Amino acid sequence: MKKLSELGERKAIRLVSDILSKGDVAVGIGDDCAAFEFGEKYLLVSTDMISQKAHMPKEMTPFQLGWFIVAINLSDIAAKGGEPLGLVLSFGLPKKTSEVFLKDLTKGADACATVFDTTIVGGDMKETSEIIICGTVVGVVNKDEFMPRKGASPGDIIAVTGTLGKAGAGHYNLKNKILDNDLSKQLLEPTPKIKEGRILAKQKCVTSCMDISDGLSSSLYQLQDVNNVGFEINLNSIPISSSLIQLHQKQTNLNIYNMALHFGGDYELLVIIPPRNFKKVKEELKKNDSDLISIGKTTSKKEIIIMDGNVKKTLENKGYEHFINHIF
Amino acid sequence: MKKLSELGERKAIRLVSDILSKGDVAVGIGDDCAAFEFGEKYLLVSTDMISQKAHMPKEMTPFQLGWFIVAINLSDIAAKGGEPLGLVLSFGLPKKTSEVFLKDLTKGADACATVFDTTIVGGDMKETSEIIICGTVVGVVNKDEFMPRKGASPGDIIAVTGTLGKAGAGHYNLKNKILDNDLSKQLLEPTPKIKEGRILAKQKCVTSCMDISDGLSSSLYQLQDVNNVGFEINLNSIPISSSLIQLHQKQTNLNIYNMALHFGGDYELLVIIPPRNFKKVKEELKKNDSDLISIGKTTSKKEIIIMDGNVKKTLENKGYEHFINHIF
Repeated sequence: MKKLSELGERKAIRLVSDILSKGDVAVGIGDDCAAFEFGEKYLLVSTDMISQKAHMPKEMTPFQLGWFIVAINLSDIAAKGGEPLGLVLSFGLPKKTSEVFLKDLTKGADACATVFDTTIVGGDMKETSEIIICGTVVGVVNKDEFMPRKGASPGDIIAVTGTLGKAGAGHYNLKNKILDNDLSKQLLEPTPKIKEGRILAKQKCVTSCMDISDGLSSSLYQLQDVNNVGFEINLNSIPISSSLIQLHQKQTNLNIYNMALHFGGDYELLVIIPPRNFKKVKEELKKNDSDLISIGKTTSKKEIIIMDGNVKKTLENKGYEHFINHIF
Repeated sequence: MKKLSELGERKAIRLVSDILSKGDVAVGIGDDCAAFEFGEKYLLVSTDMISQKAHMPKEMTPFQLGWFIVAINLSDIAAKGGEPLGLVLSFGLPKKTSEVFLKDLTKGADACATVFDTTIVGGDMKETSEIIICGTVVGVVNKDEFMPRKGASPGDIIAVTGTLGKAGAGHYNLKNKILDNDLSKQLLEPTPKIKEGRILAKQKCVTSCMDISDGLSSSLYQLQDVNNVGFEINLNSIPISSSLIQLHQKQTNLNIYNMALHFGGDYELLVIIPPRNFKKVKEELKKNDSDLISIGKTTSKKEIIIMDGNVKKTLENKGYEHFINHIF
C-alpha cells in the first residue's frame, strides 16, 4: 500500500480529484481558483494551508506568518484577474502559544489584507501540535476578464510579471548569512500581484495564467497538464532578481539560473499571451509601475525546452513538491 | 505573558477580532458565517478546522473524517438559512499516510457533499505532523431570509430542530462500550440541518439562529454575547435523544440532562422565534419530516436560567472550549 511520501503531492491531488463528484461549477480543481457562475461575474474561491514543517523557517516572525498566509491566498485571485472580496483564516495553534504571538500573527494578516484593499471576515481557531494556518479567499471577476490556466495556443508569448529568484536568494541568505541585508523579506513577505492581475485581465487577451508559487519549472509542467502546447524558454531572457545577482557576487559558485528556474515562492504571474497583444499589455503595465517580460513562446510539440543560446535542453521539473521535498 | 491554554478559545477569538480591520462586509466575525452583499443576496462564507488532537477519536474512520469536515461546514450555512454553493478542503497529512486513507477520506467528504446537493470544488494538500483538515464553504441566501445570531427580543420562543444528547451518547458509548449498537455514528457522521435551515429561512420570522455545535449551554452564552436578552430554559422541555435514553437504561448513574445541556456535536439549530409565528413554522417543518421543539423563552433580564419544575438555577456555561478542554 503506497504512502503519500511515495505518491507525492501532485499525484495525491489527482487521486482526490478523480474521486470527487463534478458539480455545477464553471472551473473546478486544477486551476488557481475554483469559479462559480454568479450572474455576469465569476465568484472565485481558493484555499491554501501552510504548516510549520513545510513553510516556516525559524527566522520567520509571527507577523510575517500572518502576512504570508494572506499574500499567498491573494496571489491565487491575482492569477485569475480577480478582485478579492475577503478572506477567512483558520489558526491551528499549540496550547503553549503566547498571546503576543497570536496578536502579531493577526496584525501581519490584517496588514497584508489592508494593503491589498480587502478584509479578514471570519475564521476558526483550534488546538494543534504544530502551527498550521489555513486561509480561504473569495473574490470576483467579470466573466470576460477571467484568466484561466487552460487556453494557450502554439505561438503565444510566455511572460512573467517580474524578476525571479527573489525568494531563492532570500532563503539562501537566511540559511547561509552571506549578506548583511534582509533578503529574507522577499521570501517571507511576498507581494501578491493583484494590481498586475487586474490590469492583465482588463486587456481581455491573456490565454492562460497562473502564479509561480511552486517555481517556474513546476508551474510550466502544471500548465502543460491542461494545455495542448509545448513551452520553449530562453534562459537568457529570464529576469533575475537584483538580490540574487548581489548574492552571486559574494557566492560565485551559486547557480543563479537553477534558483530562478526551480525555487518556489516568487509569486509572480506566469502569463501566456498572443504576440499581437504583447506590446500594448506591457505598456499598460509599465504605466502602472509594473512590467511584463517575455521569456519564451508556446510551441505545438508537447515538450518543455530551455534554450541556452543555441543549446536546447529539456527543462527538468525540479520545483517543490510536498510529501517528497523539504526546504526547511 | 499569557498562553492560549490560559486564555481559552473564545477570549483568543475576541483578541483576534479586536485587532482586525473592519471592512465592507454585511456580517463579520461572531456569526456562524460571514456575509457579503451580493446584489439581492448575501454571499455566505464559513471555515472550520479539525485536528486529530481535538476531534478524532481513534475509532473514527477516514470516511467519517471526510464526512465530518463537510457536515460541520454545511451546518454553518444551515444556521443562516442558506444554500451551499460549494466547498474547498485543505488536507494536512503526515507523509506516512496511506493512499487508501486519502481515498476513503475523499469518499466520505464527497458523500456528504453529494447528499446535501453540493460539491467540493477545490482544495490544498500539505505535509503536517498530525492530521489537520480545514474546510471552507460558500453559500447564498436571499437578504430577507438571512437568519442572524443577533436579533432576539424578550418574549420570543427558544426552540431546537431536534433531540439533544445524540453526540454525547455516541461519545459515551464509544469510550465505555455499554451498548452493542453503533451510537457513535451520530457523533462521527452528523447531519447538517440544511433542509430545516431553508424551511425556517423562508418563513422570514426567525429573529436569531445558530447551530449547537459546542453544546446548548455554550451556544446560549454565545447568543447572549450579541443579544440584549436573557434565556429561560425549561429542563423538562429539552428533547432527549432516544439513544441517550437507551444508554441511560443500562447506565442509570448517567446524568442525561448534563449531557444534553453541555455536550457538543449535535448540530441541531437553536432558533429564536416570536410566539405568534411558532405554530405555523413548526407545521411547515413537520410537513417535511422535521420538527421545532420549544425549550424556553427569551427574557429582558440578561441571565441564563434553567427551570427544573419550579426550581430556578443559573445555567452554567460548561460547553467545550478549545485550548482548555479535551474530549478525546
